[in-house]
Amino acid sequence: MADPILLTPGPLTTTARTKAAMLTDWGSWDSAFNELTASICCDLLKIVHAADTHVCVPLQGSGTFSVEAALGTLVPKGGKVLVPDNGAYCKRIARILGYLGREAVVLPFAEDEPADPARIDEVLASDPGITHVAQVHCETSAGILNPLPEIAAVVAARGRRLIIDAMSSYGAIPIDARRLPFDALVAASGKCLEGVPGVGFVIARRTELAAATGNSHSLVLDLVDQWAYMEKTGQWRYTPPTHVLAALRTAIDQFLAEGGQPERLGRYRRNCDALLSGMRAMGFESFLPASCQAPIIVTFHAPPDPAYEFGAFYRRVREQGFILYPGKLTSLETFRVGCIGAIDEQALRGAVAAVAQVLRQMGVRRIAPLHAEHA
Amino acid sequence: MADPILLTPGPLTTTARTKAAMLTDWGSWDSAFNELTASICCDLLKIVHAADTHVCVPLQGSGTFSVEAALGTLVPKGGKVLVPDNGAYCKRIARILGYLGREAVVLPFAEDEPADPARIDEVLASDPGITHVAQVHCETSAGILNPLPEIAAVVAARGRRLIIDAMSSYGAIPIDARRLPFDALVAASGKCLEGVPGVGFVIARRTELAAATGNSHSLVLDLVDQWAYMEKTGQWRYTPPTHVLAALRTAIDQFLAEGGQPERLGRYRRNCDALLSGMRAMGFESFLPASCQAPIIVTFHAPPDPAYEFGAFYRRVREQGFILYPGKLTSLETFRVGCIGAIDEQALRGAVAAVAQVLRQMGVRRIAPLHAEHA
Repeated sequence: MADPILLTPGPLTTTARTKAAMLTDWGSWDSAFNELTASICCDLLKIVHAADTHVCVPLQGSGTFSVEAALGTLVPKGGKVLVPDNGAYCKRIARILGYLGREAVVLPFAEDEPADPARIDEVLASDPGITHVAQVHCETSAGILNPLPEIAAVVAARGRRLIIDAMSSYGAIPIDARRLPFDALVAASGKCLEGVPGVGFVIARRTELAAATGNSHSLVLDLVDQWAYMEKTGQWRYTPPTHVLAALRTAIDQFLAEGGQPERLGRYRRNCDALLSGMRAMGFESFLPASCQAPIIVTFHAPPDPAYEFGAFYRRVREQGFILYPGKLTSLETFRVGCIGAIDEQALRGAVAAVAQVLRQMGVRRIAPLHAEHA
Repeated sequence: MADPILLTPGPLTTTARTKAAMLTDWGSWDSAFNELTASICCDLLKIVHAADTHVCVPLQGSGTFSVEAALGTLVPKGGKVLVPDNGAYCKRIARILGYLGREAVVLPFAEDEPADPARIDEVLASDPGITHVAQVHCETSAGILNPLPEIAAVVAARGRRLIIDAMSSYGAIPIDARRLPFDALVAASGKCLEGVPGVGFVIARRTELAAATGNSHSLVLDLVDQWAYMEKTGQWRYTPPTHVLAALRTAIDQFLAEGGQPERLGRYRRNCDALLSGMRAMGFESFLPASCQAPIIVTFHAPPDPAYEFGAFYRRVREQGFILYPGKLTSLETFRVGCIGAIDEQALRGAVAAVAQVLRQMGVRRIAPLHAEHA
């Protein structure tokens, strides 16, 4: 049986070529590997047009390791961080700041409401002690796209610093450092670049990073030390995940060959459209309004039918060759379907067909959420 | 041309089967992947006979990430740590403690001198404020094996807690938790288990870990939180390096099929013997006395010949298919050759022949260190 298609927002389905890049063992001290690392960092800067102003600091671990590293390195000990919050990844940033002993101001939004630049502006105006804003670009808890350009403009106009969690948007949603000012942007290998998971990276403004010596709470997460060592030696401070990086190099090659960010976004949009139209035809309703739905992951209301149970639904859809993702909302029962990875709209149509078949098998008849019947 | 053989102590040469395990994409939420993680942790505990007393907490990142996590989680804020120091990895522990704001007492030894249990005992006796000892088992800076059982006995007799950096010894040098008391033992995927790099793990005493809530300086490095989440859900808190873990599972299968730790040690000893005898026949002298030479990595004095230059030597040996490792001693010029990885004594003999050929090509005639001529 073929491997199932991952409709999860990282780890995701990668190409055979990307995986085959892991069939070589690399010496982490060897110049060939140093060149591989340097070429990755160079390309990662270019993708967001940041080569003139920023540096790329890769870091071992999941993307959250890089998020914590960016906050711990770039927010000074007396810093105060505004966290617009419309999901679990925003809450995770606030939790990290608690560990770091950095003051956090959480600005809550509903889980289906984009972060509002006007409200961010109000808070910044009323609290001059806030030094930084930490903004999640695409909140995959619900799949919401936050209005990053407008938020960045507000933050810059108020003279504050911006740290962006672009984990699930980098490479797919356009970000242009020449027009969108930020001190740090964090992403990882295993999302829209379609590499395998195991390494993150921070695109950090060179001047701010250079001024951040002594801030970090952690040796392994100290981006200044990681960067300085790599600048000096071309090598990683500590053993890098060599195979993961070889896969990332190959994944970026394919990203560029596909046409870069615009083409990747186009494919994900087609995936998302195929998913939404197929699921709607079946009666499903997506949680988010179209205006703030990122083409990364879609949250669907669970069918309000007593015959529906997520565990059984998941297992049966998996048997059909598709791995879904559980919901992550605080109160509503939902499930999620990712649109990203080395897949096309055919895969999403296949997933929709599998969902339809499984629901029939399970005897699930009521699919539209209850409130829809009153509409 | 075939890939070069890595004679470096991680990343190292892995089997084709281990690398092929990375040709599948795994869903990190899927039960099949949860079972894979659980089975790895179960085996990692058994290898050091710790299943009754300890738990295994895997952590994303290089081994140093797990070392910092163990220190940050298990040493309370008022703790004081003795660090017997005979190499760069000991110094790294002291540096981590500096970041953490935990008091460190460094007990220096020469780079060719094993840590001395009697001197450790003296320091513990004279300073009752010391709560923990952080001991590197095999210091790969020189390749020295520290007398861990004797040190553990001293630490236990003085009622202090032991944290072991077993990065390059775990799986090869015997460690038995039933007889050798420790609170934490840290190692990683890409060393003597012969997996690929990208994940570390901490074998932590269950009672101590359970009592360590609130110690950690870092969310991502908080082993209590990592463990509690995994206990509750079977899943990783943050995206795991799925392919690295699949490779580790396969590598452990091969480790067990080979006969486990005793057989792995036997092969590494044969590798080390083949290396030492071949290099000695050429005139090389190893830096360490045989009594404290671990069969993991060997440091050789660089030839005191004006025709020798490490960069050129390295590149030419690499062209012959072998990747050597630079020295890491503070004052002497040396180079290192690893004995670990999915290689046998034939590979080491091949490396010795390549070294001989390259030195002839380079016109290096004087190989024995100068002091040897006076002996």
